[in-house]
Amino acid sequence: MRLTRVRVPALGEDLPDTRLVLTGPEVRHLSVMRLRPGDALLVFDGRGREARAELLALDGLRAELRLVEELPGTPETPQPVTLAVALLKGDKLADVVRAATELGAARIQLLVTQHADVRDIGANKLVRLNRIAAEASKQSRRAVTPEVLAPVPLGAFRWEGQAYVAHPYVHDLLTDHLHWDSPVTLLTGPEGGFSEAEMDGLTGRGAQGVVLGSRILRAETAPVALLGAIVATGV
Amino acid sequence: MRLTRVRVPALGEDLPDTRLVLTGPEVRHLSVMRLRPGDALLVFDGRGREARAELLALDGLRAELRLVEELPGTPETPQPVTLAVALLKGDKLADVVRAATELGAARIQLLVTQHADVRDIGANKLVRLNRIAAEASKQSRRAVTPEVLAPVPLGAFRWEGQAYVAHPYVHDLLTDHLHWDSPVTLLTGPEGGFSEAEMDGLTGRGAQGVVLGSRILRAETAPVALLGAIVATGV
Repeated sequence: MRLTRVRVPALGEDLPDTRLVLTGPEVRHLSVMRLRPGDALLVFDGRGREARAELLALDGLRAELRLVEELPGTPETPQPVTLAVALLKGDKLADVVRAATELGAARIQLLVTQHADVRDIGANKLVRLNRIAAEASKQSRRAVTPEVLAPVPLGAFRWEGQAYVAHPYVHDLLTDHLHWDSPVTLLTGPEGGFSEAEMDGLTGRGAQGVVLGSRILRAETAPVALLGAIVATGV
Repeated sequence: MRLTRVRVPALGEDLPDTRLVLTGPEVRHLSVMRLRPGDALLVFDGRGREARAELLALDGLRAELRLVEELPGTPETPQPVTLAVALLKGDKLADVVRAATELGAARIQLLVTQHADVRDIGANKLVRLNRIAAEASKQSRRAVTPEVLAPVPLGAFRWEGQAYVAHPYVHDLLTDHLHWDSPVTLLTGPEGGFSEAEMDGLTGRGAQGVVLGSRILRAETAPVALLGAIVATGV
């Protein structure tokens, strides 16, 4: 069974047997996962360090943990982050692929959507986007190169775990919901946005709408803003 | 005197006389600001709503507030956010200005830095960047157009309030420090990054180093990631 993974404040120098008290959304998450005293879990500090821990006590507002041992930190996100992005005109996809690679996307899935001016991309262009991802990995000194996957219709796209879609009419924040217990998918639309039917379809299939400020973002800005939020809030 | 402003979870329907309990970093901030029971403060929910509140009780770990009345929400950040960005080659500044406008920057200050390939920009280019900001405001339906200010040497740039600089050797997160009690400045470097001497100068003058993931970001990605983090975490 995969261990539950929660974010903790900075891990100190003396790890084994250190006790930590958590409050806030991570505690709610432990309750939802039905963890009990004595259960093992993983903690990470969003600063590159990770440790095994044991749950000592849990009520609705606070959790007490004992740190057991440090694990080798990984420069990748604790769960893979997929960017599912609509086909965009011109060279905008190249810009998105470059930034998404630097910002830690594990995979970039191209989507065919209703409002897109572009319905398909040629095999050459897909090869080129994958080459751009490889170059961006190298330049950003990243060990992993995200694969850019050939476009699929939005309705046929399936994800595992959590999915988030920038939505103009909700008030939920990405950081209200995001946790690292399952893979994460970020969906962003084409120049004209997702259609209302597409948005209904996505939320009906469990994607969580999230607000991204009060302005209309260009199609190429939204993915960078969402991935930027993930790196700047610490994973 | 300007009222202290803190972030709260979502504000509900019945505002007046609702009581709220806060935990976490906002409580520390109230302690640092030396607020006492009976003091007035402002709260905002990061979802566009704002209210006046009264502090009822405060200890090291929790604060209790009473909501007094809702204030008209504003689509701008509670304090102005200045993006101070190094001169960049080619059309990269135009891309940064466009994205920064959509993501709510109040002002864009250009900087001359040690590693920059570009030492100055002509008057025409500055006019063009301001025109790009005006167009981006319109397209993103933003009421405010950020001014793009002529380059100043980094050493001569003065800021008011908080300043954050992406730093490769720290483990602090933007979201560990950012609060909305004073103006915010985000500093990002040129292609080669800030020099060690420049970084020492900035942190010596009080700028807080923050980590932005474990990869090397291009000069044009870092400002979008930082501003994206601010909109996606809710202001």
